[in-house]
Amino acid sequence: MAVSSLPIPDQLARRDSLSERYKSVRQYTEALCAPLEVEDYVVSSMPDVSPTKWHLAHTSWFFETFVLKPRDAAYVSLDPRYAFLFNSYYVQAGERHCRAQRGLVTRPTVDQVFEYRRYVDEHMLELPDGLDEDPIVTLGLNHEQQHQELLLTDIKHVLWTNPLRPAYDARRANQSQPPSTFDGWCEIPEGVHRIGDDTTGFAFDNERPAHRVFVEGFKIANGLVTNREFLEFIEDGGYSRPELWLAAGWAVVQADKRTAPIYWERDDDGWKEFTFAGMTAIESDAPVCHVSYYEADAFARWAGHRLPTEAEWEVAALNFPGMPQLFCDRWQWTQSAYVAYPGYTPPTGAIGEYNGKWMSDQWVLRGSSVATPPGHSRVTYRNFFPSDTRWQFTGIRLASQ
Amino acid sequence: MAVSSLPIPDQLARRDSLSERYKSVRQYTEALCAPLEVEDYVVSSMPDVSPTKWHLAHTSWFFETFVLKPRDAAYVSLDPRYAFLFNSYYVQAGERHCRAQRGLVTRPTVDQVFEYRRYVDEHMLELPDGLDEDPIVTLGLNHEQQHQELLLTDIKHVLWTNPLRPAYDARRANQSQPPSTFDGWCEIPEGVHRIGDDTTGFAFDNERPAHRVFVEGFKIANGLVTNREFLEFIEDGGYSRPELWLAAGWAVVQADKRTAPIYWERDDDGWKEFTFAGMTAIESDAPVCHVSYYEADAFARWAGHRLPTEAEWEVAALNFPGMPQLFCDRWQWTQSAYVAYPGYTPPTGAIGEYNGKWMSDQWVLRGSSVATPPGHSRVTYRNFFPSDTRWQFTGIRLASQ
Amino acid sequence: MAVSSLPIPDQLARRDSLSERYKSVRQYTEALCAPLEVEDYVVSSMPDVSPTKWHLAHTSWFFETFVLKPRDAAYVSLDPRYAFLFNSYYVQAGERHCRAQRGLVTRPTVDQVFEYRRYVDEHMLELPDGLDEDPIVTLGLNHEQQHQELLLTDIKHVLWTNPLRPAYDARRANQSQPPSTFDGWCEIPEGVHRIGDDTTGFAFDNERPAHRVFVEGFKIANGLVTNREFLEFIEDGGYSRPELWLAAGWAVVQADKRTAPIYWERDDDGWKEFTFAGMTAIESDAPVCHVSYYEADAFARWAGHRLPTEAEWEVAALNFPGMPQLFCDRWQWTQSAYVAYPGYTPPTGAIGEYNGKWMSDQWVLRGSSVATPPGHSRVTYRNFFPSDTRWQFTGIRLASQ
Amino acid sequence: MAVSSLPIPDQLARRDSLSERYKSVRQYTEALCAPLEVEDYVVSSMPDVSPTKWHLAHTSWFFETFVLKPRDAAYVSLDPRYAFLFNSYYVQAGERHCRAQRGLVTRPTVDQVFEYRRYVDEHMLELPDGLDEDPIVTLGLNHEQQHQELLLTDIKHVLWTNPLRPAYDARRANQSQPPSTFDGWCEIPEGVHRIGDDTTGFAFDNERPAHRVFVEGFKIANGLVTNREFLEFIEDGGYSRPELWLAAGWAVVQADKRTAPIYWERDDDGWKEFTFAGMTAIESDAPVCHVSYYEADAFARWAGHRLPTEAEWEVAALNFPGMPQLFCDRWQWTQSAYVAYPGYTPPTGAIGEYNGKWMSDQWVLRGSSVATPPGHSRVTYRNFFPSDTRWQFTGIRLASQ
Repeated sequence: MAVSSLPIPDQLARRDSLSERYKSVRQYTEALCAPLEVEDYVVSSMPDVSPTKWHLAHTSWFFETFVLKPRDAAYVSLDPRYAFLFNSYYVQAGERHCRAQRGLVTRPTVDQVFEYRRYVDEHMLELPDGLDEDPIVTLGLNHEQQHQELLLTDIKHVLWTNPLRPAYDARRANQSQPPSTFDGWCEIPEGVHRIGDDTTGFAFDNERPAHRVFVEGFKIANGLVTNREFLEFIEDGGYSRPELWLAAGWAVVQADKRTAPIYWERDDDGWKEFTFAGMTAIESDAPVCHVSYYEADAFARWAGHRLPTEAEWEVAALNFPGMPQLFCDRWQWTQSAYVAYPGYTPPTGAIGEYNGKWMSDQWVLRGSSVATPPGHSRVTYRNFFPSDTRWQFTGIRLASQ
Repeated sequence: MAVSSLPIPDQLARRDSLSERYKSVRQYTEALCAPLEVEDYVVSSMPDVSPTKWHLAHTSWFFETFVLKPRDAAYVSLDPRYAFLFNSYYVQAGERHCRAQRGLVTRPTVDQVFEYRRYVDEHMLELPDGLDEDPIVTLGLNHEQQHQELLLTDIKHVLWTNPLRPAYDARRANQSQPPSTFDGWCEIPEGVHRIGDDTTGFAFDNERPAHRVFVEGFKIANGLVTNREFLEFIEDGGYSRPELWLAAGWAVVQADKRTAPIYWERDDDGWKEFTFAGMTAIESDAPVCHVSYYEADAFARWAGHRLPTEAEWEVAALNFPGMPQLFCDRWQWTQSAYVAYPGYTPPTGAIGEYNGKWMSDQWVLRGSSVATPPGHSRVTYRNFFPSDTRWQFTGIRLASQ
Repeated sequence: MAVSSLPIPDQLARRDSLSERYKSVRQYTEALCAPLEVEDYVVSSMPDVSPTKWHLAHTSWFFETFVLKPRDAAYVSLDPRYAFLFNSYYVQAGERHCRAQRGLVTRPTVDQVFEYRRYVDEHMLELPDGLDEDPIVTLGLNHEQQHQELLLTDIKHVLWTNPLRPAYDARRANQSQPPSTFDGWCEIPEGVHRIGDDTTGFAFDNERPAHRVFVEGFKIANGLVTNREFLEFIEDGGYSRPELWLAAGWAVVQADKRTAPIYWERDDDGWKEFTFAGMTAIESDAPVCHVSYYEADAFARWAGHRLPTEAEWEVAALNFPGMPQLFCDRWQWTQSAYVAYPGYTPPTGAIGEYNGKWMSDQWVLRGSSVATPPGHSRVTYRNFFPSDTRWQFTGIRLASQ
Repeated sequence: MAVSSLPIPDQLARRDSLSERYKSVRQYTEALCAPLEVEDYVVSSMPDVSPTKWHLAHTSWFFETFVLKPRDAAYVSLDPRYAFLFNSYYVQAGERHCRAQRGLVTRPTVDQVFEYRRYVDEHMLELPDGLDEDPIVTLGLNHEQQHQELLLTDIKHVLWTNPLRPAYDARRANQSQPPSTFDGWCEIPEGVHRIGDDTTGFAFDNERPAHRVFVEGFKIANGLVTNREFLEFIEDGGYSRPELWLAAGWAVVQADKRTAPIYWERDDDGWKEFTFAGMTAIESDAPVCHVSYYEADAFARWAGHRLPTEAEWEVAALNFPGMPQLFCDRWQWTQSAYVAYPGYTPPTGAIGEYNGKWMSDQWVLRGSSVATPPGHSRVTYRNFFPSDTRWQFTGIRLASQ
């Protein structure tokens, strides 16, 4: 099934039945794999990247571990060794395979992993009491949606690592580059605001509790920084002027010899970009993609502005919900470190490791990207990544005092 | 001159003349070196540590570069090559020696470095227009005071690296371990507060501008965590229970095989600690020292509490200025990442690199320590270090909702 | 076609036609792949290991580069980019892909690589002047035979890296462990001997020129060290007694925490070994396999003997051609460094890089192993590997004065 | 006492008394330190380099450990912890300090180390039975002479690491560059020769036993490769032509960005070289110095020749003892790996670690250098170093068939 023929977000959001939603989300993951060859599923092109095969299995392991086993005493695993291979980082869920070796495991084969998915799905859908009352199922679906984005993010890096630069899917070329619509600033006056989730719907634990923040008056850009603007930064010596960079960022620029966003390459015909459709010319009006926090921060300094805090971003999004490119274009770096909200308490047990133990040495990103699956965006959503990473679909929204 | 016979903080604070203050601060730096052998000045025991010799020269280079050369066109350097050797990280001030090799440079000798200090001092004190009107001189003195603390911090690590564990100064044993006075919590109700410096006196650029924050109601400990309490954490398996740690912290614990604060060692007679007076028994009531952010955070989680934010710390210190151990005991880790205050603008030129370019991947620490020189503490002061470092005089103050 | 039904060495050796031999060798390579899943072809489990897919393509590239292109001006590559991907280390043959990334390249797919082989084969077999007069074709076939052994060596490591320890081929379990037949020493008196190849048949350049050596009287073991004997070494503390080891070897033992040959594991039932058939019990009388030079040297010292030099090995093999286990069991470490024979001259051009540029920091191994293809053993053959490697089928033959 | 006023080699060789020789050798070590500042004694500029202070102490530890303690039950160490700090690598002599941290130990001070030397000397010279009958004393003196050369070799690297490039001793400038006297080749016919030490005088265990070798006819250069010749190699693209290099050598050239011998630098006035007298112009006729095996091998290939084997070198030196520059100029790389002579047996106990455990992954060098102390050269002497090292006083003598 082609991704383009899958249900769109609103339709998913309206579904009454968690079983239907379960089937839809699980199906969407597999649809993302349709363009791949068997060989593509196996490889990890850098420590941040997991093999496609692993994403497929790990998301199934999540349901097996946190739903099937606790709820069905008679449940028998398809292969008990999968618990070791496909646990990601849940220390309280048992021993696990070394992340660095994920890309070296050729068995189970891709076919066997799809068989594992079917096995878990059948048991999930046959649970005696159904799925609907179990909040862990909803968590598992949101977890799988996060891995849908990671799967796309990772396979793009895998294919790019190949000197042949093979396309993921020729039809997805432009989809990843919507036109930018920046037209000035949106001003927000000083005041106390309430941010974070206080609904009864699903939200991750790190979006809670809702709480108050004082935000000094600021302005925030009505759109995202474009490739054209970022190219001006490059041509103005952006990557060779240390005074524009954080010290740690400048060290990375020099060590990695960075001169452009990760997937950009320059040949005699000018700058090109690796997309899902292979190498293509840079589209000037599209929002710049695949920049790290360091690059976003340096660009903002060069432009005479700064990045927004996550509170500013959320307040702006709440007050101006029609602000362009909030969602589904690029994750937007904020200058807020990823830490707990006041009063935050993680759930007990292994599920408590989901978000809480990552609250150091990362930055919050807000919004969502072209790789985010339908129905998985929220104004309170807190994505997070370290300062130097840029294989994700990340961009820049500016702010200013 | 022994450190103990130097002027005490209040006396320094009262001085009218910047020239007098200049002489006093410069003299204090040299007094800190009195217990050292020539060999001790040369070595860097890990990448974070600079040789004593380098601290002595670099602080002089600061005055030469930012005061003497700009203000005195006729100024001739004692040795023009020192500008290369003793520039720390100011890219805009010219090429500089590689930090990693600071501990490999045996010349200039210690005597020559002291001669360099005298040469700079003579020229500083003979500046035609005097020192008093120059804010860079004040910055240079605060800079030198920061290096006074670093010098002590670094030489402690150098001496500890030696299997012989030589003492820095036998008389300083207990000075570093004041008794802890914790007696419960101080409660602060929710509200909008103003933090940051808005005086006309000296403050670093990163303490400005003053701005408003909303702080939810919280409570903060009336004293610092003691060695006794930290030992309970250790004995309760603190260093072997991953659920207590941030993921990045647990990775460090395992990679470094950490089982206690950096200078602690256990032998048949129990736990001992490396102090300025050499190895001594742990003093139970003294505040724990030399813990990283990861350890502070894990301890807080184990204790059922959390670390304060820097806004909470400052609000508490402003409202309860008599709160014990705010200053001169241990730097106190906060769960606030080191980023710019709203509206922050660094100075132009190389001086702008002083604080601004370090605003990533570090945490704010508040208060001051036993190694902080007299007169160098402030309620708005923002110290900062990365998550895993612990050779500084750092401790733990708890907070809670 | 199963490997077991392929022609045996003598039959191959007797063939008159190089075309027939070409087809046979090429077919043998592909037969070795029969037990593999597509996923198995892709991975490199450590820097020494190349993916199966790469071995299949590289051996074809060799014929394309050194035979088809030079001899057929009209030859058009199936994909000109393969020259970049599948050149191993021939600097003079053009730019090449980074060895460290061989295991990250998912395209061309396995099917496409087999298509590449067929394409090269068709062109090779249709060369206007035939193959028979071209010494480079013979070199290419010997090259492919070396990669046949490497393919088996590497895929064994790939499968072992998987915690599931999948078998390569259940039928090959015992084939890899012929019984040992050691029964004492063979004595050779002092004298001048001639070693190296002086025939008109095929030999690698490093086996020439034949030359004279003086060998002091020595004795050499009539068989290889067995698993039983190596287990005695282990149980006598062999891996924890530094006095038995070369300094560099002891450093490796400690850094890698080595306690046994690479594929050995101990569980409650005793020692097991990873073989082509998966984990199996150690066979006591089989020659020990997968030991490094360091381990071979330490064992010899423990046993009160030493390793032979390559001259001693060759003289012994020439004088006692019936000596057991000379070939087809284990490569035998010698204490001779891999350097040029007196008068050695490599061929000109890229082919000269085949052997000559590796003549440093490696040891010569003599004989051949169970993984060596039929017809590829010679008394003058010089295999070579670095001191700490042990994923090859290497064993120990002792010598003494 | 200046080095130049010390006894010359012949005088040393003639001495009857081992006590006199002991005093002379110990005095010579200290005389080498005369030009140093205290700071210079402390530093290790790379892992291969030991601090001067450590050389002074370690050579004393050798006598303390292997002579004083075994022979004098009443001997009391000056400081028992020195045994831990100053044992180099003798596992059987007890635990020892980590080599990588030698340069971080500031205490004992230089004065205390000299006091340790005096303490050991006094006890050595007061041994009841005298020194003369003890072969370990002779070994200790030869050991100390080896460290005399290492001390010079290491301190040169320490001073060069300093961007100020301070001189060791201005008077030693030219001493290190004797004029080269190459005038053609010396031919040696094929034959069986005897090499290795068979005298009753002192030789290291690795020079024994004497044994026979067959050497094919060869010729060997009458002098060493000069700076002029090596410059021709550089100017002919020597460092940028991979076909001239061993594969491992080429990898080092690229990783280290090597373009000349280690101490060479090019500025607007041409090539300069760091010598004991600081930076000086290259002396064209002096033998090239500070090249690694890789560079020696690449030069030889470029010149159309090769390096000699150690047997060839020794046979040539025995047959043509007047051959220029055999000794006291540059150590000469051979293409012989450092392995045991046939029949070699190391002494029992810790002394057996002296040479035996280093017999892997290194090359033999023959002759001696300008830094070798008087009286420490021998035709059977086997020095050894790894392929990529070049901080030693190493040069090139060519050979050919």
